[in-house]
Amino acid sequence: MIKKRSININSVGLVQTDYYTFAAPPDTFQLLCGKKLSPITIAYETYGSLNSDKSNAILILHALSGTAHAAGYNDENDKYPGWWDTYIGPGKAFNTDKYFIICSNVLGGCNGSTGPSSIDPTTGRPFGLTFPMITIRDMVNAQWHLIQHLGIKTLLSVAGGSMGGMQALKWGILYPDIVKSVIAIATSASISAQGIAFNEVGRQAIVKDLRWKNGDYYDTGQPESGLSLARMIGHITYLSEKHMHEKFGRRFQGSEVPEFDFNDEFLVESYLRHQGIKFVDRFDANSYLYITRAIDYFDLKKDFGGSMINAFENVKSSFLIISFTSDWLYPSSQSKEIVQALRATGKNVVYTDIKTDKGHDAFLLENKALEKNIVNFLRIKFDI
Amino acid sequence: MIKKRSININSVGLVQTDYYTFAAPPDTFQLLCGKKLSPITIAYETYGSLNSDKSNAILILHALSGTAHAAGYNDENDKYPGWWDTYIGPGKAFNTDKYFIICSNVLGGCNGSTGPSSIDPTTGRPFGLTFPMITIRDMVNAQWHLIQHLGIKTLLSVAGGSMGGMQALKWGILYPDIVKSVIAIATSASISAQGIAFNEVGRQAIVKDLRWKNGDYYDTGQPESGLSLARMIGHITYLSEKHMHEKFGRRFQGSEVPEFDFNDEFLVESYLRHQGIKFVDRFDANSYLYITRAIDYFDLKKDFGGSMINAFENVKSSFLIISFTSDWLYPSSQSKEIVQALRATGKNVVYTDIKTDKGHDAFLLENKALEKNIVNFLRIKFDI
Repeated sequence: MIKKRSININSVGLVQTDYYTFAAPPDTFQLLCGKKLSPITIAYETYGSLNSDKSNAILILHALSGTAHAAGYNDENDKYPGWWDTYIGPGKAFNTDKYFIICSNVLGGCNGSTGPSSIDPTTGRPFGLTFPMITIRDMVNAQWHLIQHLGIKTLLSVAGGSMGGMQALKWGILYPDIVKSVIAIATSASISAQGIAFNEVGRQAIVKDLRWKNGDYYDTGQPESGLSLARMIGHITYLSEKHMHEKFGRRFQGSEVPEFDFNDEFLVESYLRHQGIKFVDRFDANSYLYITRAIDYFDLKKDFGGSMINAFENVKSSFLIISFTSDWLYPSSQSKEIVQALRATGKNVVYTDIKTDKGHDAFLLENKALEKNIVNFLRIKFDI
Repeated sequence: MIKKRSININSVGLVQTDYYTFAAPPDTFQLLCGKKLSPITIAYETYGSLNSDKSNAILILHALSGTAHAAGYNDENDKYPGWWDTYIGPGKAFNTDKYFIICSNVLGGCNGSTGPSSIDPTTGRPFGLTFPMITIRDMVNAQWHLIQHLGIKTLLSVAGGSMGGMQALKWGILYPDIVKSVIAIATSASISAQGIAFNEVGRQAIVKDLRWKNGDYYDTGQPESGLSLARMIGHITYLSEKHMHEKFGRRFQGSEVPEFDFNDEFLVESYLRHQGIKFVDRFDANSYLYITRAIDYFDLKKDFGGSMINAFENVKSSFLIISFTSDWLYPSSQSKEIVQALRATGKNVVYTDIKTDKGHDAFLLENKALEKNIVNFLRIKFDI
């Protein structure tokens, strides 16, 4: 559903979020944890036009705090466009003049798709902690239902950064006959102990907040302190030390002379507090718990006897793997491990380690090398 | 005050903490922030014997959460010795057969020295947030009073890691006629924006804990959640990613199969939660705020027109600077910056970047290269 917004010629313009509900009773949706969910709603947006043989679709997969709103504007008064507007639009890397782009909010999320803040039809109240544990596999399987609903039999590409990259890799493994190519950016076959540690501190910040109330806070308001702390921790890991130094250094907000108090005197403190507060307005604390847990559990090798080569064995797609030299949350070494396994199984893989100081966040920011890599990869594979 | 503990031949044995009080009214102690304190008590321990001309004293300076208890045992039933027992004792790097070792708890601390948990004599209640802001310079000046009290006119060395290294560097600059040598390990002339960011998240965890009560929690108990979270964040930064991977990896505590819940299933989660809980028993939350703030504010260059060369200009001591290759909280580059400035001013400086996977914590752990560097440096300088 696209209306062009005339003021932005390279924008997809005004867009609206659509919703698809499936697994309605008596059907159920089987989760990896053993539990079932019914029904499930997936929020999604599409940009560009599906061609007559439905062969030009690309599925965009979002990261931890992303939404279905990847490009354009939901309202004329919106200050900012969708989260990957830099890369999605007419003439952009994911060129909506050529491709039909789909982006959906993950299962477990809080921006239109079924998650812990959704109403449990059996109780009439939000699920909270009664929501079953979600995995990356479950997110992908839910997206598969959406793709079926749209009548799409093949995806030119599945693409995402960070947790979006995990979903992209999993799509390639679970649905080799649908996925023609995988674009996995700044991601990992399994996050490190350090990554789990940061997620765990974020979760503990939430659950130790007295306003969390064992997840049953929907009548009384979010555990604001805990959720904002979790986001502050996250933001440190998304930036490189060097980028933080360049962006904030040791500069004060006000005068050159220290105030000698506990206010947010250093610029970096002010930035983090602001990011924390902003996040509380747009993200559900329980979704933060569930989604970080899905990231922790994600392990491509685990179902394949600990072998990534076995994991990729039946995959038919080609791959574009991209890492960023200053990304310390999903370091280049983890992308290289994926590339080695893909090459060992004879897959068609393009790998680039993009030199940047922007850290993990680089996949969300304007980056000419990233754009060029995506454009070239898609053009060579599918110049339609 | 040393009684040898016969069971440990290379230990200083049973030791007791002593206390020195100064700046008692009508005297006051002037702080950098402009405020005054009166009186001040400093907790300290000494190991070995001061020689007749009082020329064999070495002052050990502790890090963020350290205490005066650097070596030996305060009680026969103590499970663990002092925090730097690996390096202090008969025949050890800081050889108590040769040297008279002094270690004091910093001003602002919570282990015997005056700090925010101390009783404010004007109100009869703990200071809490009415305690004035403390800087590294104030810590050093308070230690200077202790050294005077002990009748010591020269210090063979001032030595410490992390914040202890900051104090050591500041000692060399403030008291060039007292300090013969500086041993600064895993430290910095000023921590990075990223370091301030981690400290800030730790502080926000404390002040957002409803039990913190604007610092006035001494009747009702510590803000346990906030303080333990701050410690968890700290511990992530003290370990290298590689060390964390080797120590915990992605291993579960129990079975190989995921439990699909929010318990501390991954080993690394269990480790961090345990470290957080332990810390609450031994450290005051307000001291955590004050001491991390002192670390943030520390900037060797700031008082010298932004020039580290100017800062070291009048220093007379020689220097041993040590960094660890995997320390990302106080990276080697920050030590190298200090070394360059020292060399540019023609100071006598030995620098070693010790190869280790142990991260920032390496200065507290057994490390043969660290030991050898300290032994050689002290022997060449002062073979007494």
